[in-house]
Amino acid sequence: MVIQTNRSRRRIARPAGSAPNSADRVVRNCRLVNVLTREIHPADIEISGSRIRRIVGPNEGRGRKALDAAGAFAVPGLMDAHLHTEATLLTLGRFAEAVLPGGTTSFFINPHEIANVLGLRGIQWMLRDAAGLPIRIFLIAPCKVPTAPGLETSGAEFKRLQVREMAEWPGVVAFGEFNGDRLLAGDPRQREILQWVRPDGKILAGHAPGVLGEDVGRLWEMGIRDDHESTTFEEVRDRLRQGMTVFLREGSTERSIGEILPEILKEGLSTDRLCFCTDDKHPDDLLAEGDVDHHVREAIRLGMDPIDALRCATWNCALHYGLERDLGALTPGRLADIVLVGSLRRFDVRAVLVDGQPVFRDGRPVRRPREKEVPLWARRTVKLPDRIEPETLVIKAPITHGKLKARVIEVHPSLPTTRMRVLDAPVLGGEVLSNVSRDVLKIVCVDRHSGLGKAGAALVKGFGLREGALGSSVAHDHHNLVVVGASDDEILTALRHLRRMRGGLVAVRGKKALARLPLPVAGLLSERPVREVVKGLRDLKVSARALGCPLPNPFMTLSFVSLPTIPECGLTDHGLVDARAHEIVPVPV
Amino acid sequence: MVIQTNRSRRRIARPAGSAPNSADRVVRNCRLVNVLTREIHPADIEISGSRIRRIVGPNEGRGRKALDAAGAFAVPGLMDAHLHTEATLLTLGRFAEAVLPGGTTSFFINPHEIANVLGLRGIQWMLRDAAGLPIRIFLIAPCKVPTAPGLETSGAEFKRLQVREMAEWPGVVAFGEFNGDRLLAGDPRQREILQWVRPDGKILAGHAPGVLGEDVGRLWEMGIRDDHESTTFEEVRDRLRQGMTVFLREGSTERSIGEILPEILKEGLSTDRLCFCTDDKHPDDLLAEGDVDHHVREAIRLGMDPIDALRCATWNCALHYGLERDLGALTPGRLADIVLVGSLRRFDVRAVLVDGQPVFRDGRPVRRPREKEVPLWARRTVKLPDRIEPETLVIKAPITHGKLKARVIEVHPSLPTTRMRVLDAPVLGGEVLSNVSRDVLKIVCVDRHSGLGKAGAALVKGFGLREGALGSSVAHDHHNLVVVGASDDEILTALRHLRRMRGGLVAVRGKKALARLPLPVAGLLSERPVREVVKGLRDLKVSARALGCPLPNPFMTLSFVSLPTIPECGLTDHGLVDARAHEIVPVPV
Repeated sequence: MVIQTNRSRRRIARPAGSAPNSADRVVRNCRLVNVLTREIHPADIEISGSRIRRIVGPNEGRGRKALDAAGAFAVPGLMDAHLHTEATLLTLGRFAEAVLPGGTTSFFINPHEIANVLGLRGIQWMLRDAAGLPIRIFLIAPCKVPTAPGLETSGAEFKRLQVREMAEWPGVVAFGEFNGDRLLAGDPRQREILQWVRPDGKILAGHAPGVLGEDVGRLWEMGIRDDHESTTFEEVRDRLRQGMTVFLREGSTERSIGEILPEILKEGLSTDRLCFCTDDKHPDDLLAEGDVDHHVREAIRLGMDPIDALRCATWNCALHYGLERDLGALTPGRLADIVLVGSLRRFDVRAVLVDGQPVFRDGRPVRRPREKEVPLWARRTVKLPDRIEPETLVIKAPITHGKLKARVIEVHPSLPTTRMRVLDAPVLGGEVLSNVSRDVLKIVCVDRHSGLGKAGAALVKGFGLREGALGSSVAHDHHNLVVVGASDDEILTALRHLRRMRGGLVAVRGKKALARLPLPVAGLLSERPVREVVKGLRDLKVSARALGCPLPNPFMTLSFVSLPTIPECGLTDHGLVDARAHEIVPVPV
Repeated sequence: MVIQTNRSRRRIARPAGSAPNSADRVVRNCRLVNVLTREIHPADIEISGSRIRRIVGPNEGRGRKALDAAGAFAVPGLMDAHLHTEATLLTLGRFAEAVLPGGTTSFFINPHEIANVLGLRGIQWMLRDAAGLPIRIFLIAPCKVPTAPGLETSGAEFKRLQVREMAEWPGVVAFGEFNGDRLLAGDPRQREILQWVRPDGKILAGHAPGVLGEDVGRLWEMGIRDDHESTTFEEVRDRLRQGMTVFLREGSTERSIGEILPEILKEGLSTDRLCFCTDDKHPDDLLAEGDVDHHVREAIRLGMDPIDALRCATWNCALHYGLERDLGALTPGRLADIVLVGSLRRFDVRAVLVDGQPVFRDGRPVRRPREKEVPLWARRTVKLPDRIEPETLVIKAPITHGKLKARVIEVHPSLPTTRMRVLDAPVLGGEVLSNVSRDVLKIVCVDRHSGLGKAGAALVKGFGLREGALGSSVAHDHHNLVVVGASDDEILTALRHLRRMRGGLVAVRGKKALARLPLPVAGLLSERPVREVVKGLRDLKVSARALGCPLPNPFMTLSFVSLPTIPECGLTDHGLVDARAHEIVPVPV
């Protein structure tokens, strides 16, 4: 659901004529954690409509419905300060189902991937979808669509008009994320976007790994108010000194609490500008450890005062986004997003209320989150020509036969970064060939947005396939189809599977799909429950390993080869991109 | 000065073409107190224009002008979260001069008294006046003008139009103050004003002594966001639990830090929603102990962590009023309001910079704050008929001779409260007489706004004058002329002196003024330095004592007799007011 703003608040005021002594609901016999005063005291919580009405002594509360907390701690619903839910491969409804058991109830999402595929109307659809869900969604409006204009075909293009339109939407609390290094280097596009959004006074979300010292001040002066990319204590300290808010991230690839928090505690730095976020969390990790509840457990385990940990997960975030009048603490007048836990350390959730309604209880959702039906246009996003010609896959050589020096993308086994290598490659019939025995494979990227089927082909090292092909419609940030394979035929087979599934992930051997995970919503998301998605991913990994791939996360690696920005090279449907020169280059040197 | 808003900020950006390595000014060799991280570290502070440009290591700073801090602590300029500067009897320029040595640089003022005399244009004049001063003024826009419509003649009347106009002014951060008890009782006028201002989302300032428990929640739901009237720990705790901000007050009559702070510390309550304020501080106290610097010293003395004390005096206040992007901490990009102190505990101010300019140094202001000339209309506010007829002072009786039961105002020796007593009074020639030997004196209140000279006369007990009269044009909240005296002739003499001074305070014996303090600006303020005003007050007290008055603060007591609202009775130019019935009553019962 989207925040009830002050305007809409009147609708949910106490109904006229209702007796002052009858709340709609009472949560009895809890130990209320007041993150404002740092007190914990026995209390009953009365709720009217979506808001807390009164907090009274134990067994003093009255309400038409009652929920016995049996001495559990009542804490505010947790808040994930920055994330891209697309990383979970789940629609928002399935995402809600997956996070509810952990007690995170507010999410500050940047639907950057959906925006690149479906544009403004995709984001609007997500927000409409969110309206019926038992979680609260706020928007960090994505601005950089596409990521690399002129170097990729994307599903949408945001200019001033689109960005300004989002500024008017309810639920938009920030714009972002802005690349610190590029802002500092004077990148004209980033600076232009900054000019569009700055007058609104909304939070500008930063993305500034490695920026230190006075450069932090320069970003702050440009309007950047937070950062979620810190991986060292020094980065955190310099941001806090400046008055920026820092989101400590525990995602699937980046983990920073264990590294940073002990040092913050050791140095005695104030933690009141720290929040928690996941950024990108894969469905298996989400299922295994939860969302921000994981941060809370970790923080307490690392020695943080439990109330400080809860403040990072609630009040600090509400304050950062200017929502502290409605959220972040359990007080009369604020929204009744309440989590009941048996122990603060274990953060074992017994019940969750959102907007005054129980949504999770006795180990399961009170009702399955009802999603609105996905519109057809959001399901038909893989647009290819009727036939994909084998010629599409050809890498042309300036010679007919022999050998040449070729540019090869080398992937990192666990990080989403690439290097550009120059290696020998065989040429036959004027075509640069792959060399499976030396792990130099062909990789293609095919435009799925326009229907014209423009494709780029290149060579890649690191996937280790001895046979078969791996294909994905999740391919940052343009999300065209990307396929790596040991043979052109198997690459074509994978492309056909991707088309048939309307997007997804597939592992192919010969003509057959060994494993496939359909992601029919925007080619990015599944409508299946998280457990099924996790099982699908596991099957895909097993298949990839059977085909010879040694990577721990082959499909994640695949999804980042297409990114033309970090740090050395990438492959888009336009061809091989030299990221440093910001231009298309041929494979032969 | 008024805050540089984002809009005006462009004007003060780094001048084009200035070399990036030359700041306008550098504060060298300080120990910077970062209230954000709680760190103290050696640093140089570079300043460009009105803002901090860089914070660098010691002796690394460069600037065209330098100020050697010689190892002093650099802390943000202190903030007084709620006050009426009229209580100091000083114009803003003289006020600035008086507070600068203490390091308070930002003031959140509610010019309620000026508003009652001069209306909107009086407030605007104050703000214009403030623009040239070395302190920062923010406005808590006064709404209740007059305080008791229909029961008093005031200099202005604020309706929807006036209140809405103030909402548009820069520098207005809040509206107030709203009486908690009356809001809770459903007072239609308070609720009406609330409707006018609530849509702006600005802070609504509370005034809710004694309100506890769930009533605090009810005020919060009405939009009340702070309170400065708490005198007990329970009041503070209930407000903090709700998420209200509490201003701990150290004024001339109300002192709450010593009472409340130790208990807050003992209970371990979070102090991050506490601020400091003076509310009403008389010039002698201001001179003797300073402004919020006094709070900081007291708080540290009472065992508060010095950085927590500074946070209450700076960051917490900036955050409460939504000014945290510009003020409240020393970081690049924020305004350079810097106080250098030799010791945090003693808070001995060595230098003050505001807006990047040194304004206090080596024990004296860098230059005398230059005030704009006071406009004539603000100096000519005591408007009386050419002749004040002795009949004005007559209290009519329903009998010609004898005795009757009369209503008598009884003042409290030290609090601004009154009781309504019923005592015997002699009647002669159809006129109720005073009885000096029993300390039942005549008191009059004469309209000074309209020029019509409407007057109310009544009896008062507690001033103890055996001869002479005391008169004042400071008379809450309408600020008509109020005079108490042992004889009608001396009362008339006092009135004539008040007219001649164009307002002020006077003690009269026979035809002669024993002591007088002219307050020609709005009949409320002096343009003389604080020391002279303090001396004037002292002479007045000595004279009052010589006339028989036992009260510790006779002129403060006099200024509150005219208040028709607390708690039992008061005297306005309309006559004796029964505060509980909210109506004019005759003196004879």
